[in-house]
Amino acid sequence: MRGNLIIISAPSGTGKTTILKRLFTLVKGVTFSVSHTTRSPRSGEQHGVDYYFVDQQTFLGMRTGNEFLEWAEVHGNYYGTSRAEVNRHLARGLDVLLDIDVQGARQVRQTAGGDCFSIFIAPPSWEELTLRLTGRGTDSPETIRLRLDNAIKEMQDAGLYDYLIVNDTVDQAVDTLRSIIIAQRCRARRNSDGLPLLLPDCEHRPL
Amino acid sequence: MRGNLIIISAPSGTGKTTILKRLFTLVKGVTFSVSHTTRSPRSGEQHGVDYYFVDQQTFLGMRTGNEFLEWAEVHGNYYGTSRAEVNRHLARGLDVLLDIDVQGARQVRQTAGGDCFSIFIAPPSWEELTLRLTGRGTDSPETIRLRLDNAIKEMQDAGLYDYLIVNDTVDQAVDTLRSIIIAQRCRARRNSDGLPLLLPDCEHRPL
Repeated sequence: MRGNLIIISAPSGTGKTTILKRLFTLVKGVTFSVSHTTRSPRSGEQHGVDYYFVDQQTFLGMRTGNEFLEWAEVHGNYYGTSRAEVNRHLARGLDVLLDIDVQGARQVRQTAGGDCFSIFIAPPSWEELTLRLTGRGTDSPETIRLRLDNAIKEMQDAGLYDYLIVNDTVDQAVDTLRSIIIAQRCRARRNSDGLPLLLPDCEHRPL
Repeated sequence: MRGNLIIISAPSGTGKTTILKRLFTLVKGVTFSVSHTTRSPRSGEQHGVDYYFVDQQTFLGMRTGNEFLEWAEVHGNYYGTSRAEVNRHLARGLDVLLDIDVQGARQVRQTAGGDCFSIFIAPPSWEELTLRLTGRGTDSPETIRLRLDNAIKEMQDAGLYDYLIVNDTVDQAVDTLRSIIIAQRCRARRNSDGLPLLLPDCEHRPL
């Protein structure tokens, strides 16, 4: 059976990275899609593992050819999620997680249509988000303010997502995310393929 | 937050009773609705616990008053799920499980509209279902044949359900059922109530 395409977005500081790391230890059959980018590899980054590193001409050609589910330009570099890369995993029956922001999510909803579902992870409160961002101790007040402004903007898109997880505790958030992925695997629409297998089987067997 | 109304159907011999018993040990905030019936209480059955035992006049009056989400006549007795009983639990934030057959499920989908979701539990195969029904050792071949005929008919409604669980192993089926219930609790539509609480909060806090 074909895998599911799963969009996950969360404002910076929500704890998404921790949640996703834990998720991968709990659920089989889930993978990330490797993005394309025009930025240069950093030390230790591998082509095909961290990113597909391509030149600008290649990227723009792919973009013109409608080969991206979503793409963005950040600080002069292009980033994109290749349709072919995602389809390759889905066809193998793997669920593909797209860890993208609200703009990327809007694009994928348009390009993938109903063939995906989306999850928004929200911080439990403004105080908690502020605490988590300042608590890192690595960012300037200006950067923190920018992230908080961004968080407010992103929260306004939360209603467009199919599921909302409030990250009160990591354990609960991970369990909820796992539950959503498992539940989506048995949506009847996806499973209806399996029924004809069972039904004719039933009809032709003697007691 | 208001609870979810959850329809669960399964052909006889699918293992639904075992699955539901285990579910209740794993998930909080879920309850069964107590049905109304015109049949006489059996030894040990309590009014308001096992059933609401009512006379035929009361039942038919409630039916005329559109007070049932679904009702059926079985062997000359009436059985029904009262709307008020269900709403009382939902209003308290409890998820309400309706353990009903495919006919009942069709009725509830009509009367409750989009305000419910449904789960069909299927046996892994025809052989397995036959084994489970004959293995009980309590039923005549005629009864078993009747149950198998019924199972085939019920399986044809499986595509109308939102979720399909194939009961390969009880552990997995219980985990999947639990996952569906948890996932449905964070459908964005249900949670959108919570967002305005978070958003204005965000907008009025200084850094």
